Amino acid sequence: MYPKSIQKLIELFSKFPTVGPRTATRFVFYLIKLNQEKFDELLNSVTALRKAIKICSFCFNPFEALDDKDLCPICEDSSRDKTLLCIIEKEIDLISIEKTKRYKGLYFILGGTISLKKADSKKIRIEELKQRIENSNFQEIIIATNPTTEGEATALFIKRELKPFNIKITRLGRGLPVGGELEYADEDTLTSAFEGRK
Amino acid sequence: MYPKSIQKLIELFSKFPTVGPRTATRFVFYLIKLNQEKFDELLNSVTALRKAIKICSFCFNPFEALDDKDLCPICEDSSRDKTLLCIIEKEIDLISIEKTKRYKGLYFILGGTISLKKADSKKIRIEELKQRIENSNFQEIIIATNPTTEGEATALFIKRELKPFNIKITRLGRGLPVGGELEYADEDTLTSAFEGRK
Amino acid sequence: MYPKSIQKLIELFSKFPTVGPRTATRFVFYLIKLNQEKFDELLNSVTALRKAIKICSFCFNPFEALDDKDLCPICEDSSRDKTLLCIIEKEIDLISIEKTKRYKGLYFILGGTISLKKADSKKIRIEELKQRIENSNFQEIIIATNPTTEGEATALFIKRELKPFNIKITRLGRGLPVGGELEYADEDTLTSAFEGRK
Amino acid sequence: MYPKSIQKLIELFSKFPTVGPRTATRFVFYLIKLNQEKFDELLNSVTALRKAIKICSFCFNPFEALDDKDLCPICEDSSRDKTLLCIIEKEIDLISIEKTKRYKGLYFILGGTISLKKADSKKIRIEELKQRIENSNFQEIIIATNPTTEGEATALFIKRELKPFNIKITRLGRGLPVGGELEYADEDTLTSAFEGRK
Repeated sequence: MYPKSIQKLIELFSKFPTVGPRTATRFVFYLIKLNQEKFDELLNSVTALRKAIKICSFCFNPFEALDDKDLCPICEDSSRDKTLLCIIEKEIDLISIEKTKRYKGLYFILGGTISLKKADSKKIRIEELKQRIENSNFQEIIIATNPTTEGEATALFIKRELKPFNIKITRLGRGLPVGGELEYADEDTLTSAFEGRK
Repeated sequence: MYPKSIQKLIELFSKFPTVGPRTATRFVFYLIKLNQEKFDELLNSVTALRKAIKICSFCFNPFEALDDKDLCPICEDSSRDKTLLCIIEKEIDLISIEKTKRYKGLYFILGGTISLKKADSKKIRIEELKQRIENSNFQEIIIATNPTTEGEATALFIKRELKPFNIKITRLGRGLPVGGELEYADEDTLTSAFEGRK
Repeated sequence: MYPKSIQKLIELFSKFPTVGPRTATRFVFYLIKLNQEKFDELLNSVTALRKAIKICSFCFNPFEALDDKDLCPICEDSSRDKTLLCIIEKEIDLISIEKTKRYKGLYFILGGTISLKKADSKKIRIEELKQRIENSNFQEIIIATNPTTEGEATALFIKRELKPFNIKITRLGRGLPVGGELEYADEDTLTSAFEGRK
Repeated sequence: MYPKSIQKLIELFSKFPTVGPRTATRFVFYLIKLNQEKFDELLNSVTALRKAIKICSFCFNPFEALDDKDLCPICEDSSRDKTLLCIIEKEIDLISIEKTKRYKGLYFILGGTISLKKADSKKIRIEELKQRIENSNFQEIIIATNPTTEGEATALFIKRELKPFNIKITRLGRGLPVGGELEYADEDTLTSAFEGRK
């Protein structure tokens, strides 16, 4: 029904996270109606992004490289605690944790979770993780995958893989979140909340 | 917190319809992680879209111009009823109506609704609409703006502006939509449903 | 887990429309904690309701009978149009229609819709409906079942059953409801809106 | 619009938790249409509830008293740990905690939270709580109010009030709930999750 060039772009936008065909369609019409100046600004910003952004050679955090540095500002920062490593699923989780201003160690971005259908370790950067740990001096490794089914399976998998390193491995505390209610809490969360009381 | 090139693009994506800063952030990370081939495909498709798509000189419908035609396939189609004009707010409404396969006349895309704060006719293509009507031979003009507050105000405004042409002006029938329930219908809709019974 | 008397009442409240076990539980605790005066007020009101309310012998509308009248105020009202009958699914639909202040005829409450699994006419008051029509002088019968799948099936069933009476039968007009948008309208609704334009 | 007896009951049902006027209306029609047997069953169950249920003289938990006991089965149970007290906002929270089968101490139901507008201690059973503690031998008191603004304020208030007793006071652990995601966690929850890691 739509012209081919519109159809093609609807398809590509539909692959963006959270976007379905209807929203993708609205994006295309938005682009069509954008004036030339704003369209160019968008196009240039997208191109600039790919040029400016490097992936940190240690933690896989995307960062803006001013010169030919390989490490992101966090990994470069000499005030961060180099004995502490926090393993997270994805880039946005790093931002969430940095916002709390409480964590002062390093990060490692897994790039996903293991698939539940097959212990498919290829989907996550397990080899890179091991190699980082081997070449560092970590005293504690915090597995901060999400407490979802996939995140839990990934945490178990990592724990097993990292056992030979003989480093203290911890997991984020579970319990009631701010604003939560006992009435609606599941039994595991409530059990954790009781066990973690202080 | 984010590098400048990421921040800039979050800002631009946040202007896309339905997109807030959180989704915009996810779009940026999606772009960063896209492999080069897929990134180029997206960039090329966006550039191609702007090149391929023309705006119909009659109805303002975007279309893919194969040669240097000025009219979209609907306006070009000799089998469409040239005495019937349907005025709609935006491009997507045309698609919705075409899907019903019942309407066989022409369209005119207003490009929005009038602002309710000031009868700001500049926001919609009222002059272009009048000019189209003057140069055509319409026997019925269907104002198919949405039955929302803005759409209603726009319909009233258009009706007044088109009065001098002395052409039959109709509006879409109101009533209960498929799947609707009397219990939850507002009084105006229910009144329309009773008046439009058949 | 709960005492038996609580469990029993949770069960009974769970049969109330829209109420699940969790809400039912909250109702029970609400009753337990209610002070005696308010508890008695509630109990008396429930008992009074059953005593005060009669079901209209014509239209099945519940009403408060002051003396031993058999007809509800609407059926009694000599100013209502006795040649017009509106068939509705349930009591609340009557209230919705009365609120519009536009309909001046009589009602007949079906008491539900036919089951889609089997044309189970026993669930609705089809025999009572036929008998009412036989003994009245209706000139138009408006089938105002909901435009849902069940409501539509019921309307078709009624139409067939009432055919022998040779009375004009109408259905509520369909179209876009107040506040609706073409973009999100289904094809049937949009087709109806075009056909019902005026 | 509705008869008085219906109107009155809509009003009373609207005071039920989670119930608004529309749902209350549906409840009334449900009651009207209930057959006599089922109506009597409901009425008898409600009356029976008030007769059967006593409020535990220690913890304020409602229970079904078979003889003239004053204590609920939990307070009576000699296997429960009498040195541990868990303070909760309301009855349903007790059920949630009991379902985990991990907590083996006693409870005290506050009956609400303090008002945030005025440290209105009258709304909660603070005097009864103090009196219970005075006459018992608790070694730990777990304040298990919800981690909502009201629950937090109530916890702080109770902590202050119980200070003179010189008993260990704990709070439920906070953190990410089962199924939660770092990306959507607020900063306090995430900070707690890091602090409570193990």
